[in-house]
Amino acid sequence: MRFLHTADWHIGKKLHGYSLLDEQRDAYEQIKKIAEKEQVDAVVIAGDLYDRALPSEAAVGTLNAMLVDLNRQQHFPVLAISGNHDSATRLGYGQEWFASTNFFMRTRLAAALKPVTLADTQFFLLPYFEPIQARQLFEDDQIRTVNQAMERLVKAMQANFAPDKKHVLVAHFFAAGGRHSDSETLVQVGGLNAVPTELLAPFDYVALGHLHRKEALQQVPTMKYSGSPLKFSTSEAEDTKGVWLIDTDTTPVTVTFKPLKPLHDLIVLTDSFAHLMDPERHYSVTRDDFIAIALTDTTPITNVMQRLKTRFPKIIELNRTKQLTVTPVDLNIQQVQRDPLALMTTFFEQMTQHPLTIAQEKWARETLQAAQKEDAQ
Amino acid sequence: MRFLHTADWHIGKKLHGYSLLDEQRDAYEQIKKIAEKEQVDAVVIAGDLYDRALPSEAAVGTLNAMLVDLNRQQHFPVLAISGNHDSATRLGYGQEWFASTNFFMRTRLAAALKPVTLADTQFFLLPYFEPIQARQLFEDDQIRTVNQAMERLVKAMQANFAPDKKHVLVAHFFAAGGRHSDSETLVQVGGLNAVPTELLAPFDYVALGHLHRKEALQQVPTMKYSGSPLKFSTSEAEDTKGVWLIDTDTTPVTVTFKPLKPLHDLIVLTDSFAHLMDPERHYSVTRDDFIAIALTDTTPITNVMQRLKTRFPKIIELNRTKQLTVTPVDLNIQQVQRDPLALMTTFFEQMTQHPLTIAQEKWARETLQAAQKEDAQ
Repeated sequence: MRFLHTADWHIGKKLHGYSLLDEQRDAYEQIKKIAEKEQVDAVVIAGDLYDRALPSEAAVGTLNAMLVDLNRQQHFPVLAISGNHDSATRLGYGQEWFASTNFFMRTRLAAALKPVTLADTQFFLLPYFEPIQARQLFEDDQIRTVNQAMERLVKAMQANFAPDKKHVLVAHFFAAGGRHSDSETLVQVGGLNAVPTELLAPFDYVALGHLHRKEALQQVPTMKYSGSPLKFSTSEAEDTKGVWLIDTDTTPVTVTFKPLKPLHDLIVLTDSFAHLMDPERHYSVTRDDFIAIALTDTTPITNVMQRLKTRFPKIIELNRTKQLTVTPVDLNIQQVQRDPLALMTTFFEQMTQHPLTIAQEKWARETLQAAQKEDAQ
Repeated sequence: MRFLHTADWHIGKKLHGYSLLDEQRDAYEQIKKIAEKEQVDAVVIAGDLYDRALPSEAAVGTLNAMLVDLNRQQHFPVLAISGNHDSATRLGYGQEWFASTNFFMRTRLAAALKPVTLADTQFFLLPYFEPIQARQLFEDDQIRTVNQAMERLVKAMQANFAPDKKHVLVAHFFAAGGRHSDSETLVQVGGLNAVPTELLAPFDYVALGHLHRKEALQQVPTMKYSGSPLKFSTSEAEDTKGVWLIDTDTTPVTVTFKPLKPLHDLIVLTDSFAHLMDPERHYSVTRDDFIAIALTDTTPITNVMQRLKTRFPKIIELNRTKQLTVTPVDLNIQQVQRDPLALMTTFFEQMTQHPLTIAQEKWARETLQAAQKEDAQ
């Protein structure tokens, strides 16, 4: 069979306050088109369907519309699990009915042990879980870590392996390098301990969610993070987002990448303020792209965000690549107490390269007097 | 056919901070047992399944378990609508799949026009709606009130009446008396204008939700509020809660009441403090009942709530039936400013019938001094 592997949709996520629902709907449409064109037999979504345990009504409505379309209108079997961003209870609501149209939503740990079989493949759907849930499931107080839990879980899954089928694990956790070789196994990502890839070796394919870059795990060609369909941070600005197609009729399975094209991109612009504001200069961005700006200037610029937004309306980050050469005023407390007005005047001049106007000085004086008066009360 | 009519479950509701989930689960079990014993062909839930648009995880889990049990385990067809307390989007999530096992959840106005037919009966499932939704549905800006909307909706439903079937409306609004006869039609309940019962005459039965007393509508024996399965306020303390059974094979339909027994009752105790605290006196309440106390005393009683709770742990209201005969101190501002310590001493004596001890007077003096000092800063 052929299935599509995606994850980390994070429906409802915002970037610096900007809704991504339009971009998420567009990414969904592209995923659907890939599924249609490639005639996949199932779509796997490996957790974090929502961005928050308590998604907004708009997010609930959007995800529901996608799932209804994908499964009920387009008739794709769908296999999904809850991630650490989802509330298992909320995302799991109604799951008992979903299987009527081959929509398998799994949010409980126990359900992971019983595979869903589609064509030649057994899918083990392992939602995000905490070690305590594995302790309870196996009634074993010795299970303290995700790794210990995974050893038990994989063993229990293997007991249910049908020998004539391929075996796919769908999971949402942090998997990393070899058990004995790699310092990565010691770190945590998103509060999750790394699960060593060795533990997952029994599976023909491991469809992972949690990390947002498809390059996050490269040691084993049949264990993949799909990554998120959209760029969610500047560290992902250079990424190519997409989904994996997995063909199970070869051994090992065949894994192919299919890219998604961002409706509105996330772009980092590194340049001087003068260049960025120069109407003669062209930047290959649209007004709807999400822009992170890295300013190369070394002098203070007044109202910098407001002015940049006239040209780049959706700025999601503003940083400087260099230290200011105009050093900030020495803000020692005694000086502030001695003459705040003089201090403010100097600061204003340094920042704007202009002296205070008469009106500005009057406002400053009045404001300071009012503040001092309040302070004394 | 025979169906059961219930409404206003308000899963997740609290009484004075006390969770009702245990009581709600018990009421559900009783409703299920009635459905089994009476061999009903369907269960109708006329809105307000949740208490809040944003129910807690525990509420979501509880309602999901009830619906899974009723529909998937016990195999009862279920017909439900959203009420004004529900979020149509949240409650509606997954509804596209529910019909696979004859669970019809309707949260959108347009869906009300197309009946669900079970055996000899057409059910029109009308969720709670605002007039603007009817304006949009009928593309008619003249629709301004719920009544105008209902006229249009009922007409549109009638156009879909199958003449050989019975016709049942399931709705969640405030219905009242005759159009021309009754001042009730002018009032609002829960922000809803009254819909006159005349408008609903085309239906063989109207299964209503919104009002919590089954006696709320008595003019027409085939238009009923089921009322809530639990008592939610002291005004309902004397009610008998329950569900209706409707047999559609007679004309008019036959309507029978089936009572529910509260797991923990809501009881109003009207008595003196001395009686209430007297261990020799028996009140037919349990420690888990929800108690509203109406004190008949005319004198002040210190720590009254704390002391009453030693005998009645779940007090949800505390009122007095009579005026105090000891008049409160005249709290005019000048007196307070002149000598707060004297005032406090007098007040304490009046309330407790005891003078301040030496230690108490010292604490009072120190506290007042500290307060005055803070005030002056």
